[in-house]
Amino acid sequence: MGPGPINADPRVLRAMSAQLVGQYDPAMTAYMNETMALYRAVFRTDNEATLLIDGTSRAGIEAALVSMIEPGDRVLVPIFGRFGHLLREIAERCGADVHVIEREWGTVFTPAEVEAAITGIRPKILAIVHGDTSTTLAQPLDELGAICERNGVILYTDVTASLAGNAFELDAWGVDVATAGLQKCLAGPSGSAPISLSAKAVELVNSRKSVEAGIRSEGDAVSASPIRSNYFDLSQILDYWGPKRLNHHTEATSMLYAARECARLLVQEGMDNAVERHRLHGTAMVTGLSAMGLELFGDQSVRMNNVVGVEIPAGIDGDGVRAALLQDFGIEIGTSFGPLHGRVWRIGTMGYNARRDTVLTTLAALEQVLRRRGFSLTAGSGVGAALDFYND
Amino acid sequence: MGPGPINADPRVLRAMSAQLVGQYDPAMTAYMNETMALYRAVFRTDNEATLLIDGTSRAGIEAALVSMIEPGDRVLVPIFGRFGHLLREIAERCGADVHVIEREWGTVFTPAEVEAAITGIRPKILAIVHGDTSTTLAQPLDELGAICERNGVILYTDVTASLAGNAFELDAWGVDVATAGLQKCLAGPSGSAPISLSAKAVELVNSRKSVEAGIRSEGDAVSASPIRSNYFDLSQILDYWGPKRLNHHTEATSMLYAARECARLLVQEGMDNAVERHRLHGTAMVTGLSAMGLELFGDQSVRMNNVVGVEIPAGIDGDGVRAALLQDFGIEIGTSFGPLHGRVWRIGTMGYNARRDTVLTTLAALEQVLRRRGFSLTAGSGVGAALDFYND
Repeated sequence: MGPGPINADPRVLRAMSAQLVGQYDPAMTAYMNETMALYRAVFRTDNEATLLIDGTSRAGIEAALVSMIEPGDRVLVPIFGRFGHLLREIAERCGADVHVIEREWGTVFTPAEVEAAITGIRPKILAIVHGDTSTTLAQPLDELGAICERNGVILYTDVTASLAGNAFELDAWGVDVATAGLQKCLAGPSGSAPISLSAKAVELVNSRKSVEAGIRSEGDAVSASPIRSNYFDLSQILDYWGPKRLNHHTEATSMLYAARECARLLVQEGMDNAVERHRLHGTAMVTGLSAMGLELFGDQSVRMNNVVGVEIPAGIDGDGVRAALLQDFGIEIGTSFGPLHGRVWRIGTMGYNARRDTVLTTLAALEQVLRRRGFSLTAGSGVGAALDFYND
Repeated sequence: MGPGPINADPRVLRAMSAQLVGQYDPAMTAYMNETMALYRAVFRTDNEATLLIDGTSRAGIEAALVSMIEPGDRVLVPIFGRFGHLLREIAERCGADVHVIEREWGTVFTPAEVEAAITGIRPKILAIVHGDTSTTLAQPLDELGAICERNGVILYTDVTASLAGNAFELDAWGVDVATAGLQKCLAGPSGSAPISLSAKAVELVNSRKSVEAGIRSEGDAVSASPIRSNYFDLSQILDYWGPKRLNHHTEATSMLYAARECARLLVQEGMDNAVERHRLHGTAMVTGLSAMGLELFGDQSVRMNNVVGVEIPAGIDGDGVRAALLQDFGIEIGTSFGPLHGRVWRIGTMGYNARRDTVLTTLAALEQVLRRRGFSLTAGSGVGAALDFYND
C-alpha cells in the first residue's frame, strides 16, 4: 500500500508466464499491434505512434527527451516535487539549456504561472510531471496544451504515477508526448514504459533519424544532428514497431505480455470506471486517515486519487511505524524524498490494491501500530469512517 | 530454433509469476544481492559490480559505453558482423572518436591484428563483440585481456549471444566490462541485461559520478564531465544496487525474478556442463545438416556452439523454407542481416532448446520441407547422422 510499485494484478503475472515467440513471428507482431491499439485507449489518443519502451518508467522519460532535445535546445521544467527534478536532470544530460520554475512541495502551478514562464523563456519543450508521487499531487494539465499550442511549444508530460487512476486525456488536452510505467495504477510490474507521440512530435523525432549502421541501406536517412542514444532513439523504435519492422532491440516479450494485459484489463473495465474506482477507494482511505486524527500533506484539491501524504505525528517514529506495518502485518507504506523524507508517509490505493479490503485492513493495522506507540486515537475511528463512506 | 530469442525455460516463466514486493523490502534487496552473486558465477568473476540493467541486451551495451566514454575519447571497434556495427553506432552516439577495423563476415581477428590496431590507434577502450550472432562466429578473447592490459586499454565485450553456451572467463581473460541478455543461452526472455565491471571500470565510471538532482545532499558528488544518460548512469545504478540503496529507477521486479532464475538454473547445472550441453547439441545439429548435403557458413573452427549458419542452396527459396517450417511444423529458424540476408539460414540450439528432441525434430522437419522444394538429399540422412553422433 505504498506509492508504487505495488502488488500486481494476478492476471498480469499470469500473462507473463506465456511461452515466448520469435520477434518477427506473425503472432508476435500481432501482439505488438494489439498493444499499440490498447494503449491508445488508455492514453485517450488517436496517435499512431503509441508503443512501449523496454525499460522502467524513467526509460520512457529519457526516450522522449533525448529523441526530441538537440543540445542547446531550451527546455522549461516546472518543478513541484522530486520527479520534476528528475525531468530537469535528464534534460540537462541530453544537453538542453534547462530553465526551471519551482513551487513549494505540496502545491502546484497555475496555468498563468506556466504561461508567464513560457513567454519569458520561449522554450522548445515544456516538460512537466502530471502526478508527482513524491508530493502526491497532480498538476492540472487540461489548459497547458492550448498554452503550448499558441506559443509553439511541444508539451511533454510524464503520467507514470497518475495514469488510469486520474483523468488523463492526451488528445483533448493537447499533449504532444506522454510516458508512463506499469507499476502504479496499471497494476503491473516495473519494466515497460508505454509512450504516445503526436504527429508533431513524430515529425520532430523523425527529422533527426539515422538508420542504424549495421542495417543501413543505400539512400537511408543519416542525420546531421543524430539522437544521442541508440537504445532510446524513437525514430528507430518507431520503425521497429511500424510496418517496416526494422530490427532494433529485441522486444522484451514477457514485459510486452504484461503491458498488454494491464491495458486489456483497463479497457475492459473502462477508463472512466478505473478512475472512479481509484477515486472511491482513495477517498475512503483519506476519510479513514482523517477520522483517526491524522493530518494530510499538501493541497488536497489537487491530490491524486491513488496516493495520499500523511504528516507523521509529532513524537512518532515514522520509520518504526513503517517497519511494524511491514513486519507484523505484511503491509508496506512509504515515506518520501528530500524535504519530505521522514516528515510524511505516503499511502497508496492503486491498481490491484485499490480495493475495499485493502483500505480497511490498512486502516485497521495502522490503528494498532499507532496505538502501541502512544498515539491517541478513538478505537475503530478510521475503519468506521471508511465503512460509513462506503455505505453512503 | 532461430538465433534467439528462443523458447524460455518454463521454470523461468514460472518465476516471473511470483507476486511483486516493494523495492526496498528486505526480501527484494536480498533478491538483488542473490542475483549479483549468481551472475558472478555465470560471468566467472569476483567483480563486486555485477548486476542487471533494466532493458534488453543493447541497453546493457549502451550503459557500459555511455558510462565510460567521454565525448572525444578514442574507441576501437573491431567489426566482424552486424553487432560490431552496433557497438560502433552506440559509441559514436556517445560522442566517441571511433576507429574501426573490419574483417570479412565469416572470419574473426587474430590477436596480433587487434594489437596492431591498438598500438596504432591508442584507444581508451576496445569494444568488441564476443559471439556475433549475425555470422555465428565467436571472436577468441582469451589473449585480448593481456594485450589491453599492457597497452592501458579498457576491454569491453558484449557476450549476449555466447554466454553460457561457450566458454567465457571474465576474470581469467582480463575483461573489464561484459554485458549480456537473457534471450539466448540463458533461456529467458529479452528485457534484462546482466553486466559486470572490474574495479578499474568502476573507478572510471565513478570518476564521472553526479548524484541525481532530486535526491542530492550537501557535499554529494557533482561531476564536471557527467555521464550523458541518467537511465544508463552506472555510477548511479551502482549506488542503487550497493549498500547505499540510493533511489534510481524502480527495479523491474519480474524481470529480476527471471534473470535470477536463469542464473540459478545455470549455476545448478554448472557452467562447464552448460557449455558442454551446448557443444553436444550444437555439434549434433551441425553433423545432421552436413549429412543432408548442406554447406555451413563461416570459419567453423570459431563457430559458436549455439548457432550455425547454413548456406541457402542454389535455387531454393530461403524465406519459403522458413515460412513452411514455421507454419507447418511450428519451428522458427532465422536468416541474417546485411550481406548474409537471404544467403544463409541461422539455426540455433541454445538455452532451453539445446536438447536432443529439438535437434532431431528440426532436422526431420527441414528434410521434409527441402524435399518438397526439390532439394536432393538422402532420406533420413540428417536425423541418422545426428543419432549416430549422439550414440557415439
